[in-house]
Amino acid sequence: LQKLGKADETKDVAFEEGVINFNKQYTEGSKLQRDLRAYLEAVKAMHESSKNVQACLADMYEPDWDGHDEVESIVEDCDVLWTDYHQKLVDHALISMDTYLGQFPDIKARIAKRDRKLVDYDSARHNYSATHKTKKKDGGIKITKPASLLERAAPGWAQGILSAHSVAQSSLSRSQAEEELERAQKVFEEINIDLQEELPSLWNSRVGFYVSTFQSLAGFEEKFHKEMNELLPSSILCLFNLIVSLSPSSMFCL
Amino acid sequence: LQKLGKADETKDVAFEEGVINFNKQYTEGSKLQRDLRAYLEAVKAMHESSKNVQACLADMYEPDWDGHDEVESIVEDCDVLWTDYHQKLVDHALISMDTYLGQFPDIKARIAKRDRKLVDYDSARHNYSATHKTKKKDGGIKITKPASLLERAAPGWAQGILSAHSVAQSSLSRSQAEEELERAQKVFEEINIDLQEELPSLWNSRVGFYVSTFQSLAGFEEKFHKEMNELLPSSILCLFNLIVSLSPSSMFCL
Repeated sequence: LQKLGKADETKDVAFEEGVINFNKQYTEGSKLQRDLRAYLEAVKAMHESSKNVQACLADMYEPDWDGHDEVESIVEDCDVLWTDYHQKLVDHALISMDTYLGQFPDIKARIAKRDRKLVDYDSARHNYSATHKTKKKDGGIKITKPASLLERAAPGWAQGILSAHSVAQSSLSRSQAEEELERAQKVFEEINIDLQEELPSLWNSRVGFYVSTFQSLAGFEEKFHKEMNELLPSSILCLFNLIVSLSPSSMFCL
Repeated sequence: LQKLGKADETKDVAFEEGVINFNKQYTEGSKLQRDLRAYLEAVKAMHESSKNVQACLADMYEPDWDGHDEVESIVEDCDVLWTDYHQKLVDHALISMDTYLGQFPDIKARIAKRDRKLVDYDSARHNYSATHKTKKKDGGIKITKPASLLERAAPGWAQGILSAHSVAQSSLSRSQAEEELERAQKVFEEINIDLQEELPSLWNSRVGFYVSTFQSLAGFEEKFHKEMNELLPSSILCLFNLIVSLSPSSMFCL
């Protein structure tokens, strides 16, 4: 492919802004996906370590102490709440995040393809306008390719024949350039029209996606905290009853 | 030190049970301390990752969107709640855990010392009773140590002199054994009396300690979940207002 000067390249400022937005959106989304995965790992780790601390309580809570069974059931309920919270985040936030981000690689590949097809199109346009300018300026014959050794070596009488041959070649180039231009334009426009629609629509979809993601994150988190908040007082009450049931004298010797 | 037969050793079944309880209590406490530290690490990690996810929200939430400042303030409030929860666990649960467990190494060392002093005491008692038995059985002279080469080699007339020397040595051994016994008993009893009081008292203190530890853990956790639960709806409302304020057509293009 011919490298064109800046002046010959097709500029589409709106589309370029769309690409800048696309890249920003992809980076932002990928970062959220990464941070969400790390958060899920942390939820798992906190669930695990909270389970271990509660297992200590269950182990220490001797079978003949008041409320032993209650403590075991509270520990189990806590475990269920943690598991449920993690699962909800995976099923809703993470999977919808993956679906959302799944759109980007294909569009990114099509943006790159559009760039290549635009170069082809610009190049075809350049060739076409070059053959047309030549026709207008000289009223016809201009050999765009350098004179061949045969032409330079040919005697005077032979120049006319070669010249006629060049005219035929030049007409052929012009119609070829026209065909090439039409083809390049069609290929470029096919890919361009879709992207011109998809990029702004994808860009706008981010708001709804962010809102629904953070709403479901906050919603599951709220539910989790609420249920934990309902469960914990019963554990505190259980421990309080234990204090009452055991002789106070043996309790606070520490 | 002389190795005594099992029959000569002082047995104190109640104290031995106390030591079994002490070891169980130390193991249980150390496990709780370890699990509590791991839980605190997990709290820190979840705080960190939750902060990162919320930073994504704050970054994505464009400055001209409705409720931008509210989102920033909710993110900051969440951060404060996490920091506060972690700090409360460190200040109360972990530090009181460390204080509680801090008693064990000294007592463990004193149990080991009591064991050694009991061996000394048993050995002194054994020596003393051996010298007394000898006196009663033979009405006096019995050389407990094997006959020396000198004794075996001495002629008949010299045996009386050697024998008188042995009687004097034996009296000396008896009074020495008595002194030794008194000393060993005093040393042993000094350390034993303290431990006989401290072990059951430490063992009983576990209940109060466990109850207060788990109560404060559950209490801080409850407070944390409660405050999170109060904070999150405002974040959900904020996102809901954003939906309303932006054109619905641009929102759900995903």
